Amino acid sequence: MEIASMNNNDKNSSNIFTNGLLWFKSLYEKLFAKIIGIAKQFKKIGKDDPRRVIHSLKVGVALTLVSLFYYFQPLYNGFGVSTMWAIMTVVVVFEFSVGATLGKGLNRGMATLLAGALGVGAHYLASASGKVVEPILLALFVFLQAFATTFIRFFPQVKARYDYGMLIFILTFCLVSISGFRVDEIVDMAHKRLSTILIGASVCVIISIFVCPVWAGEDLHKLVANNMEKLGKFLEGFGDEIFKSAEVEESKDAKKSLIEYKSVLNSKNAEETLANFARWEPGHGQFKYRHPWRQYLKIGGLIRQCACRIDALNGYINSEIKAPEEIKEKIKETSKEMSIECGKALKELSNSVRKMNLPISADEHITNAKKSAKNLNSLLKSGINNWEEINLLQVIPLATIASILTDIVICVDEIGQGVNELATLAHFKKSNNKEITTKVVEKIELSNNNIIEGSRKVHDCSSHDVVITINESNMKL
Amino acid sequence: MEIASMNNNDKNSSNIFTNGLLWFKSLYEKLFAKIIGIAKQFKKIGKDDPRRVIHSLKVGVALTLVSLFYYFQPLYNGFGVSTMWAIMTVVVVFEFSVGATLGKGLNRGMATLLAGALGVGAHYLASASGKVVEPILLALFVFLQAFATTFIRFFPQVKARYDYGMLIFILTFCLVSISGFRVDEIVDMAHKRLSTILIGASVCVIISIFVCPVWAGEDLHKLVANNMEKLGKFLEGFGDEIFKSAEVEESKDAKKSLIEYKSVLNSKNAEETLANFARWEPGHGQFKYRHPWRQYLKIGGLIRQCACRIDALNGYINSEIKAPEEIKEKIKETSKEMSIECGKALKELSNSVRKMNLPISADEHITNAKKSAKNLNSLLKSGINNWEEINLLQVIPLATIASILTDIVICVDEIGQGVNELATLAHFKKSNNKEITTKVVEKIELSNNNIIEGSRKVHDCSSHDVVITINESNMKL
Repeated sequence: MEIASMNNNDKNSSNIFTNGLLWFKSLYEKLFAKIIGIAKQFKKIGKDDPRRVIHSLKVGVALTLVSLFYYFQPLYNGFGVSTMWAIMTVVVVFEFSVGATLGKGLNRGMATLLAGALGVGAHYLASASGKVVEPILLALFVFLQAFATTFIRFFPQVKARYDYGMLIFILTFCLVSISGFRVDEIVDMAHKRLSTILIGASVCVIISIFVCPVWAGEDLHKLVANNMEKLGKFLEGFGDEIFKSAEVEESKDAKKSLIEYKSVLNSKNAEETLANFARWEPGHGQFKYRHPWRQYLKIGGLIRQCACRIDALNGYINSEIKAPEEIKEKIKETSKEMSIECGKALKELSNSVRKMNLPISADEHITNAKKSAKNLNSLLKSGINNWEEINLLQVIPLATIASILTDIVICVDEIGQGVNELATLAHFKKSNNKEITTKVVEKIELSNNNIIEGSRKVHDCSSHDVVITINESNMKL
Repeated sequence: MEIASMNNNDKNSSNIFTNGLLWFKSLYEKLFAKIIGIAKQFKKIGKDDPRRVIHSLKVGVALTLVSLFYYFQPLYNGFGVSTMWAIMTVVVVFEFSVGATLGKGLNRGMATLLAGALGVGAHYLASASGKVVEPILLALFVFLQAFATTFIRFFPQVKARYDYGMLIFILTFCLVSISGFRVDEIVDMAHKRLSTILIGASVCVIISIFVCPVWAGEDLHKLVANNMEKLGKFLEGFGDEIFKSAEVEESKDAKKSLIEYKSVLNSKNAEETLANFARWEPGHGQFKYRHPWRQYLKIGGLIRQCACRIDALNGYINSEIKAPEEIKEKIKETSKEMSIECGKALKELSNSVRKMNLPISADEHITNAKKSAKNLNSLLKSGINNWEEINLLQVIPLATIASILTDIVICVDEIGQGVNELATLAHFKKSNNKEITTKVVEKIELSNNNIIEGSRKVHDCSSHDVVITINESNMKL
C-alpha cells in the first residue's frame, strides 16, 4: 500500500512538473510565434512601400536635429524653454507626403501668427479694464473665440484644408491671452514661441522636400493611372474568360488579377485626401504648380462608375451559358471584342497618363469598341429571323452581358474624354515611341442612344460626339 | 468752343464721379452679398445638424472652465505654468462624438504615462554615463524612438485606433528625456504634466458624456438604417416608374428621392470611422458595451454591393421600351413586384434596425420577391412558344432589367441575413406593434442558381437556404 501511494505521489509530482514544463514550452512557442508574426508584418509593411522606412528615418533625423537646440548652450540661451515648441512642431507637422507637411506647417505658422496677434490684443484690451473685470473679460474672449472657431471647423471647405490651422488658432489664442494674465513679457513670449515654431516647421519642410520627397500629387497621379489599369486588366481578362466552359480550371493568379478592380470601388476617399495635399505642393518633376488636380478627381469618379458596372459584370464570369452554339458564337465574338477593346483602351489611357503622353491609340480602341457595339446591334436585328426556335430564357444572360458591356463602352468613352481634357489642361506631350501618321480627328456619327435600339439613357449623356482634338501647341513640341 | 470743352470737362469729371460711385456701390453690393452668403452657410450648417452648435458651445465651456486654473491663485499655485497642458489637452482632445473624445483622451493619457516613464528612465540612464556621453546618448534615444514609433504608425491596426497615442508617445518621450538635460526636477515636471493632462482630459470626457452627448455608435446605427431606407425608396420608386412612358413629367422631388441612393456608394469611410469611435464608447441607451459594431460594417458592405447593382439599374429609368405590349405587360408585372417587394423589405429592415425590433415582415417581403423572381423565370420559359414573332433586340432591355433585379433580390436576401445576425447578436426585441401569429420558419427551396436558369454564380453565393430563426430567448421578452 505504502509503496503504491509513494509511487502515486511520485507520479503526480512528475506529472505536475511535466505539465508545467509543457505549459512553459507552449507559452514560449506562442510568444515566439507572435514575435515572428510581428517581425514579418514589419518586413511586409516596409517592403510594400520602402518610402515608409525612409520617412521614419527622416522623422528621427528631424527630431534629433531640433533637439540639438537643447544641448548646445549658445542655442539654448537664445530660446530657452521655448525650444519645446520646436520639438512639438516637428512631431505634429512632419507628415508622410510633402503636401501634407507643407499644409500643416503653413496652417500652424499662419494660425500661430494670427492668433498670437489677436491674443496679445485681447490681453491689452482686458488688462486696460481693471483688475476685477480682466479675468471675466478674458474668459468671455476665450469662450466666444472657441465657440466661433469650433463652429467654423464644420464648414466643408475649411475642414478639407484648414482644419489643423483652426485647431492651432484656438490653442494659441487661449495660451497667449491667458498667459498674459500672469506673464508680463507677453510679446516676448509670443515672439519666442513663433520663432521656435518657424524653426521646427522649416526643418520639417526642408527635410521633407529635399530628402527623398514623397509627393502626394505623384501618388494621386499614379493611383488614378493604376485604377484605370486594373479595370483594363479585368476587361481584357473577361474578354478571354467570358465563354470559357466552367470545367477549365483557372490559375489562382489569373483570378486574383481579375478581382483587383474591387479596390477601385472604395478609392474615393484616398483620392480626395491626396488631391487636397497635392494642392499645397510646389511644382516638382513633371508637375507644375497649379497642376489640374481637380481633373484627377473627375476622372476618378468616372473610373468608379465604370468599376460599378464591372462589378455587375463580374457575376457572369464562369457562368455556364446554355444558348445554342450558333447564337453563342455570334454574340461571343462581338462581346469579346468589345470587352478586349475597352480593356486595351483603358490600359492605353493609363499608360498615357502615367507617361504624360497624349492618348492617341486609346481613341482608336474606343472607336473599335463602339463599332463592335454597333455590330452587335445590327447582328441582333438581322439574325433574328433564323432564331425563331431559340429559348428566350437561354439568351437572357448573353443579352445582359452585352447590355452591361455597352454601358461600359460608354463609361470608357467618358473616361477617355476626361483623360483628353487632362491632357489639354496639363499639356501632355506627344509620344516619342510612335510616329503619328494621321491626326485622328474623327467624328463618330453613332450617338450612344443608337447603340442598342432600346434607346435608354445612361446617366443623361444622351449624345456624345467624340471629337478627338489634339492640342496644336503641343504638336509642335 | 470753350463752353463746349468746359462742358466736356464737366461731363468727364461727372463721369469719373459717377463711375467711382458705381464702382463703390458694386463693391459694397458684392461684399454685402458675400457676407449674406456666409451667414446663410452658417445657418445651413447649424440647421443641418443642430448638434454642431451645441458641440461648439461645449468646447467653449470646457476651455473656459480649464482656463479658470490660471485665474484663481490657489489653483495656480498647485500647477503653475503646467496649466498650459490642460488647455492644450482640451483643445486637441475634445471631438464631436463621445467615442472620438474618449479614444483621444485615453490615447493621450496612456501614451503620456508610458512615454513619461520611459523618458525618465532614458534620462537617468544617460545622466549616469557622464557629462560628455549624455547628450550623445540622449540624441540616440530620441532618434531610435522616433524612428521605431513612426514606423509602427504605419501598421493598419495601430493607425485605426492608436495613431494619436503614438504621436503623443513620441512627443512626450522627447520632451521628458531632453528636458531632463536641463531641468533637474524631472520627476516633478512629469508628474505635474501628467496630472494637468488628466484634468484636461477628464473635463472633456465629462462634458462630452453628460452634456447632450453625441454617440458615434448611434450615428453608425442610424447611418446604416438610413442607407437601407434610401435603397428601399429607390426600389419602390423604380417599381412605379419603371414602365411609365417618357412623356409623363416627373416631379422634381420624386427624381431627387430616387437618386438619394448615390450617397450610399461612398459611405464606406464614414462607416469605418464611426465604428472605430463606437468601440471606445461605454454602454448607452439601447447599446450595451461591446455592441456588435463590426456587424454594421458587414451589413454596410452588402448595402453598398446592392447600391452598385441599383446604379446599373438607374440607367433604365424612363427608358422607352418598345417590346410588344403583351410581353411588356407580363414582364412588367413581375418586375414591378420584385422591385417593390425588395423595396418594402429594405424599408422594413431599416425600420427594424432603427427600432431594434426583430425584422419579421421583411422576411415575408423577401420571400415574395423570390417568388416573383421564380414566376418571371417560369413565365419566360412557358410563354416562349407564343413569342416567336418578337424582335430579340426589343426584349433585351427588359431582360436586362429583370436580370439585374434578380441580382438585387439576392443582395437584399443577404442584407436580410446580415440584419438577422445583428438581431441575434444585439438581442433585438420582438415588435410591440404587431401580434406575431406564426413563427416564420420557412425553408425556401429555390436555390438562387435556379432563379434564372442561366445558372450563373453571383458572388459565389451558390445556394442560400433562407432559414429565418427567431432567437428563442428574445421571444420570451
